[in-house]
Amino acid sequence: MSLIVQKYGGTSVGSPALIRRVAAQVNEARARGASVAVVVSAMGDSTDRLLDLARELTPELDPRELDALLATGEQVSIALLATALRATGTPARSYTGAQVSIRTDSAHGKARIESIDTNRLQQDLAAGIVPVIAGFQGVDPQGNITTIGRGGSDTTAVAIAVALSADECQILTDVDGVFTTDPRMVANARCLDRLSFEEMLELAGQGSRVLHLRAVEFAKKYNMPLRVRSAFRPSAGTLICSEESAVEAAIVAGIAFNRDEAEFNFFGLPDAPGTAVKVLKPVSDANIEVDMIVVSAARNGKTDLSFTVHRDDYVQTERIAQTCVRVFPDIDFNSNNGVAKLSVVGVGMRSHAGVATVLFETMAREGINVRLVSTSEIKISILVDEAHLERAVRALHESYGLHSR
Amino acid sequence: MSLIVQKYGGTSVGSPALIRRVAAQVNEARARGASVAVVVSAMGDSTDRLLDLARELTPELDPRELDALLATGEQVSIALLATALRATGTPARSYTGAQVSIRTDSAHGKARIESIDTNRLQQDLAAGIVPVIAGFQGVDPQGNITTIGRGGSDTTAVAIAVALSADECQILTDVDGVFTTDPRMVANARCLDRLSFEEMLELAGQGSRVLHLRAVEFAKKYNMPLRVRSAFRPSAGTLICSEESAVEAAIVAGIAFNRDEAEFNFFGLPDAPGTAVKVLKPVSDANIEVDMIVVSAARNGKTDLSFTVHRDDYVQTERIAQTCVRVFPDIDFNSNNGVAKLSVVGVGMRSHAGVATVLFETMAREGINVRLVSTSEIKISILVDEAHLERAVRALHESYGLHSR
Repeated sequence: MSLIVQKYGGTSVGSPALIRRVAAQVNEARARGASVAVVVSAMGDSTDRLLDLARELTPELDPRELDALLATGEQVSIALLATALRATGTPARSYTGAQVSIRTDSAHGKARIESIDTNRLQQDLAAGIVPVIAGFQGVDPQGNITTIGRGGSDTTAVAIAVALSADECQILTDVDGVFTTDPRMVANARCLDRLSFEEMLELAGQGSRVLHLRAVEFAKKYNMPLRVRSAFRPSAGTLICSEESAVEAAIVAGIAFNRDEAEFNFFGLPDAPGTAVKVLKPVSDANIEVDMIVVSAARNGKTDLSFTVHRDDYVQTERIAQTCVRVFPDIDFNSNNGVAKLSVVGVGMRSHAGVATVLFETMAREGINVRLVSTSEIKISILVDEAHLERAVRALHESYGLHSR
Repeated sequence: MSLIVQKYGGTSVGSPALIRRVAAQVNEARARGASVAVVVSAMGDSTDRLLDLARELTPELDPRELDALLATGEQVSIALLATALRATGTPARSYTGAQVSIRTDSAHGKARIESIDTNRLQQDLAAGIVPVIAGFQGVDPQGNITTIGRGGSDTTAVAIAVALSADECQILTDVDGVFTTDPRMVANARCLDRLSFEEMLELAGQGSRVLHLRAVEFAKKYNMPLRVRSAFRPSAGTLICSEESAVEAAIVAGIAFNRDEAEFNFFGLPDAPGTAVKVLKPVSDANIEVDMIVVSAARNGKTDLSFTVHRDDYVQTERIAQTCVRVFPDIDFNSNNGVAKLSVVGVGMRSHAGVATVLFETMAREGINVRLVSTSEIKISILVDEAHLERAVRALHESYGLHSR
């Protein structure tokens, strides 16, 4: 008998009516002969409501108490889902992170799972009982309640699946699966059947935010097949697995994008050790996340450096950049908070230099200026004016034949 | 340094603003030099809101899942109160029942506390940290979350106080203390300074519902002084302690009453073994709680039996009583759902036969018919027409000099 771990997010358990639908989905998987363990998030906006309560008391929240508070959200969901399952005649039992137990380090709010005790879960599964496990939470060596960070229920699900040696970890969500690009932008975007972990990592990190990055990394590390599918309609969804299993990998799997970028360009910096540090360290010291970094080859002892940040950080970064400009009196500098990043992702890219050629040809045909380029093994990212983003994505989706394959 | 356990009920922690007031109260006790451990209930109506969610799923709630669900209510309160205390600079730490751990049997919804591990609490207290403990909940030997029944936070507080060998267990609530009778009925009702456990048990069981009965029993068993006082204003409240400590025990401590009673009277029943069983068993089989039972001495092989139930159970009990009437064809029967019970309570009563005399004299003077009488060691209860209850309570409060002492 196959063993499946299913994870349902907050929107899927947002009300008693929806919880009943989740129970029906679990029963359906059981009817098809699978053993099922379930991981759930907190109901809808309950985490935000709890946060609001705490913030009414003080802006300075203690991390230990915040975790104890937020963990109640999932505890409500598991009790209700177990109740709903039992109401349909399916034996079920709820478990908090501490009850499982899911042991973590003591980094409240962003704890890492260290081990999972599968004893009670395995006993339940052997007896035909559905264990319903609170996502997002664990317990540290001192018995303190911890949380593993927002979106962490995905990670809980993968960790449980790995610990139970499940056949598959299913992430049931409000989308049908992973698409070649955002269907809201490209109407004929296609739901992918299969995808490699590597591709999903590049896509998840880039705006196709159906899955939490740490969960994909975890699944990749332990080679646990992940399936993203709809919690509301029957569909096979997208299977995310190792490159070897994703046999017929396409050259390009999908196109991801980020609208809200801002670029900073330094021209004519001295080509000396430590120059890049002088530019970038003040930014990271201010806890601003830098996304793309492009450094050109040096010429005449001079080099150019560009980087991008999230647009929300534009004003603060601009201030830091201006200080930097004063350090290097002879340079040119400009910045632009109206840019967007577009990434073409695919494991097939490794051996196909043609992907870049198609990219630049398409941009040239469309008359779209490519402002910056950076590449990884399975990804090419370009920066364009935000005004051209939509046209760029559509044209590339067409060029790579993503809709028709 | 004295050690005090304080318990705050749901109305005292009903909002962030109120939780801040509770934190201030805790700080005040610490400022007076006490070490303080705190037990809290769920916020306001949160338990009812959780119940409503579960009932939307199914009317048949699984007891284990219901306990897991309801226990989140107190977990929210402890995290918020610990947060509020820390915001005032007072070190504090929240503990669920499982974290303490408060070990109970597995009787979900009405579990009994079996033992309490005081290790972490004592470490905290020694380090000047305020442990903030979830009331009402525990953990069974299998690690399942249990609840010890509604109103059970009082019991948790007493059990924690006993386990820590505290000097006093304070129940902070929305009244100033235990009164000689309901101040809403008798304007000059007096807040008692001291009361014995026995008196409190009789009063608590009779309508002066400021304290949960099991908590008083627990405190009596371990001789833990209990203090009932206002969560909202400074006052010494009422100290409930052993009879020996309550040195100047008055003859009559107070007058309790229950408005909503219904009486059933059987006249001329055969004076034979099993007669009372034939009358009362069908009632208790229907899960109807019988309050007073009065059986008269037999005469000519006949006896009379009366009992009372809560008025809500009148119609069902009347139906059962009619069946019973058919079993004993020669008897007379009547019932009345417009009666009220009044109880005079006081340990001094044991050696003072005069208490009953004053009672009957007062009723005679007021022209109030005493329908039934039953007595215990420290209590005399009478049944009167509900229309006369208020007059009866006021007259007796006067006769026993309860306001002026």
